[in-house]
Amino acid sequence: MKIIITLNLMAFHYPTNIINLYFRAIALKINFNLMKPSICNLFNIKYPIVQAGMIWCSGWRLASAVSNAGALGLIGSGSMYPDVLREHIQKCKKATNKPFGVNVPLLYPNIEELMKIIVEEGVKIVFTSAGNPKTWTQHLKQHKITVIHVVSNVRFALKCQEAGADGVVAEGFEAGGHNGREETTTMVLIPMVRKAISIPLIAAGGIGSGAGMAAAFALGADGVQVGSLFAATEESSGHPNFKNAIVNVPEGETQLTLKQLTPVRLIKNKFFKEVDAAEKRGASQEELQHLLGRARAKKGMFEGDLEEGELEIGQISGAITQIKSAAQVVEEMMKEFAEVRGRIKNMEI
Amino acid sequence: MKIIITLNLMAFHYPTNIINLYFRAIALKINFNLMKPSICNLFNIKYPIVQAGMIWCSGWRLASAVSNAGALGLIGSGSMYPDVLREHIQKCKKATNKPFGVNVPLLYPNIEELMKIIVEEGVKIVFTSAGNPKTWTQHLKQHKITVIHVVSNVRFALKCQEAGADGVVAEGFEAGGHNGREETTTMVLIPMVRKAISIPLIAAGGIGSGAGMAAAFALGADGVQVGSLFAATEESSGHPNFKNAIVNVPEGETQLTLKQLTPVRLIKNKFFKEVDAAEKRGASQEELQHLLGRARAKKGMFEGDLEEGELEIGQISGAITQIKSAAQVVEEMMKEFAEVRGRIKNMEI
Repeated sequence: MKIIITLNLMAFHYPTNIINLYFRAIALKINFNLMKPSICNLFNIKYPIVQAGMIWCSGWRLASAVSNAGALGLIGSGSMYPDVLREHIQKCKKATNKPFGVNVPLLYPNIEELMKIIVEEGVKIVFTSAGNPKTWTQHLKQHKITVIHVVSNVRFALKCQEAGADGVVAEGFEAGGHNGREETTTMVLIPMVRKAISIPLIAAGGIGSGAGMAAAFALGADGVQVGSLFAATEESSGHPNFKNAIVNVPEGETQLTLKQLTPVRLIKNKFFKEVDAAEKRGASQEELQHLLGRARAKKGMFEGDLEEGELEIGQISGAITQIKSAAQVVEEMMKEFAEVRGRIKNMEI
Repeated sequence: MKIIITLNLMAFHYPTNIINLYFRAIALKINFNLMKPSICNLFNIKYPIVQAGMIWCSGWRLASAVSNAGALGLIGSGSMYPDVLREHIQKCKKATNKPFGVNVPLLYPNIEELMKIIVEEGVKIVFTSAGNPKTWTQHLKQHKITVIHVVSNVRFALKCQEAGADGVVAEGFEAGGHNGREETTTMVLIPMVRKAISIPLIAAGGIGSGAGMAAAFALGADGVQVGSLFAATEESSGHPNFKNAIVNVPEGETQLTLKQLTPVRLIKNKFFKEVDAAEKRGASQEELQHLLGRARAKKGMFEGDLEEGELEIGQISGAITQIKSAAQVVEEMMKEFAEVRGRIKNMEI
């Protein structure tokens, strides 16, 4: 959008004595080229912030609270049976009249059923992850759904663009949960993806403040996806023990593990240490699978077992010190973003 | 620095007819609070860019070229015998009348001798790394040397401040060469260190463009340290094969390895793969030491053996596509930085 403000500070005529005395107008023409971030238009939201769709944390309560605050809330379907997802979508529609979306890990076993519910319930925005962007994009787009796919490298970002996705989330090594094998960090990944694609780009991984958001924009992103910070909000459905673990985890106390299977970033609790020790002694994939057992993520994040459960969270948890409401998180991020923007503007270089 | 520009656009009196007609002055008072990055004042340099002191790449030729371009060049003493360092310092003094510094890894075996030479030769700026900041800071400061220490976590950043260091380089996981065990990325590390310390903060790791520089400033840094990009310049003393390897390495083709010993980020060549395989099968520290052998870094980076040598480089190498002069690197970074700043200023949020 282009706004032209013309200030005619003085434009007047003065007769002095008999002869007309005449003053020239002084016109100050100030030209602003103000650009709205493309994802605000794409999703029809006020702030270019997306709340990550996270297992066990982001149900209808968090998603609707975030959307009501002017950002984009996502229901994380990865931990939901199909009927549970339908219930969450219906509750979310009742709780907000703002846009919201659903995150779908494409490796979900009942994926067809999930997609059917998403279409039936009239969901307008879907974030897909952990799979080939080609598989579902066209199907969803036929139902007029905006499709974003999550990637961790340039190659897959290009695949998304070719598949007709409306945008890409590029997620760095510092992000919580499942993660790319290349271990490319947000700082390195975003400028490379930016150069490769022309569709909207959302940065994820390590972003938990307005400063991080400004950094992401500097790197070329059109918006940010924020996970850990929202996992620790009042509206998150994570167990209170898990939220307390997030606000108390010291710097450097998360680590990417299970690299032989699917890399995942976890808090270094008892469960993590067992897995890590097994990896270090060269355990086979079968041994690791056995050690992993079942429902460890639910046990940790939803049931609050901080010893035996799997606690997925990003590195930025080290900077999170308080449980807040989702609205407060959005408001504070935008406030700090404005401050940082002012600081950068006034740098004398 | 604070600049106040006062524009008295019109300030005059007019008598019309008999009665004095009187015009009010219109005063537009524009107040800029332009802040020069603190490291420009600290080092007395034009641009807030430090060229990392790197083994086998940053001798007097690179350091003086960078300093002549308005940034801060560093001689990397880690790969130099004491006499060689003295020669490089003397040549650097002849090649530039701008400030330059020396990087000293504190684990260097002849550290006393190096420090003696640094003082004797009147070096004004020293970057120390890989050791306790308390050990040498006061000694150097007694000789009126500006001391910066490189860290990879908040705890050590605080130690530097307590030790009286003049500033800190905080280096993220994506950086080349030796690296912290916490694996904290630049995006996460910088805001945390910024909150913890009040002395100047230089961001390192993953910065190879004006966009990365702007991101670092957004995160709270006062300057940036750039390694990989300068390792691939014409003035770098790295072997041409190594420089070509840097500009050709694809995204995701560096990895942090040797985590049992001292973590180091390498290009995934034959040597890396042997080390990595040994680590994955749970090799002991002794086995790893034996495999590592001697002088692998020199063999790779200085002698150009891309198979058997150790090739230390940062993740950002994936974005480096051309060998340029050091001056061109500095100039292009500053140009892109200005563009990014303009883009962020004009965002409509």
